[in-house]
Amino acid sequence: MNIKTPFLTVDGIIKIFEEDKFKGIVLIKRKNPPIGLALPGGFVEVGERVEEALIREMKEETSLDVTIERLLGVYSDPKRDPRFHTASCVFICNAKGIPKGGDDAKEAYIYKLEEIEYDLMVFDHAKILKDFLEKL
Amino acid sequence: MNIKTPFLTVDGIIKIFEEDKFKGIVLIKRKNPPIGLALPGGFVEVGERVEEALIREMKEETSLDVTIERLLGVYSDPKRDPRFHTASCVFICNAKGIPKGGDDAKEAYIYKLEEIEYDLMVFDHAKILKDFLEKL
Repeated sequence: MNIKTPFLTVDGIIKIFEEDKFKGIVLIKRKNPPIGLALPGGFVEVGERVEEALIREMKEETSLDVTIERLLGVYSDPKRDPRFHTASCVFICNAKGIPKGGDDAKEAYIYKLEEIEYDLMVFDHAKILKDFLEKL
Repeated sequence: MNIKTPFLTVDGIIKIFEEDKFKGIVLIKRKNPPIGLALPGGFVEVGERVEEALIREMKEETSLDVTIERLLGVYSDPKRDPRFHTASCVFICNAKGIPKGGDDAKEAYIYKLEEIEYDLMVFDHAKILKDFLEKL
């Protein structure tokens, strides 16, 4: 098999609710380069649907059990990841509880929408969040 | 690099218009196994955005210049392709003109929505078209 395609990834915009009140979204501090703030996410494994990958990665990186609301889009600019070409399926999802960093996530935080630190964000995640906020 | 993810593909639901009148969608007869009717599509190349891959593949397989309307969804069931695991970004797009089969497409046809031969379709393309028709 000599087929090469971009690596397939998933990222999640997790909306945190506390008793039906929206508290903010989850961002992680990355443990590995590129270092910075990011949406939780990771690689899709062979044999796994993108929705399954999303739920697994959110659990690994934030300890949260998420439910998927909808697909925001597929982000596939070859320069979006400085390491190699990835294409990310970005899902909007919902969860309750307090995120706890794990795996590639050194820390996980809830950010109020008006307090997101865009200048600290890596990859194209600032752009993704702006797309998300525009369609709110 | 030891990362393995599903192969990334694109498929297009091409809506053909003749002087602003909707004529039908394009299906191709595949040249290579699995043999059957399919949406035009193919692999995303490294270095290429999914939207670019879609436009390129539609041109190669149908000779049409398409404009993208929107992403319908990402279809990633590991069993959707009998050969290996693929995840497909399915786009709805528009074009004018008469499709002409090329590359993996032995023939290309315009099908009226009510005349689609679902029983001849391969992969999960019958399901994709049903999702498309449900949201029309």
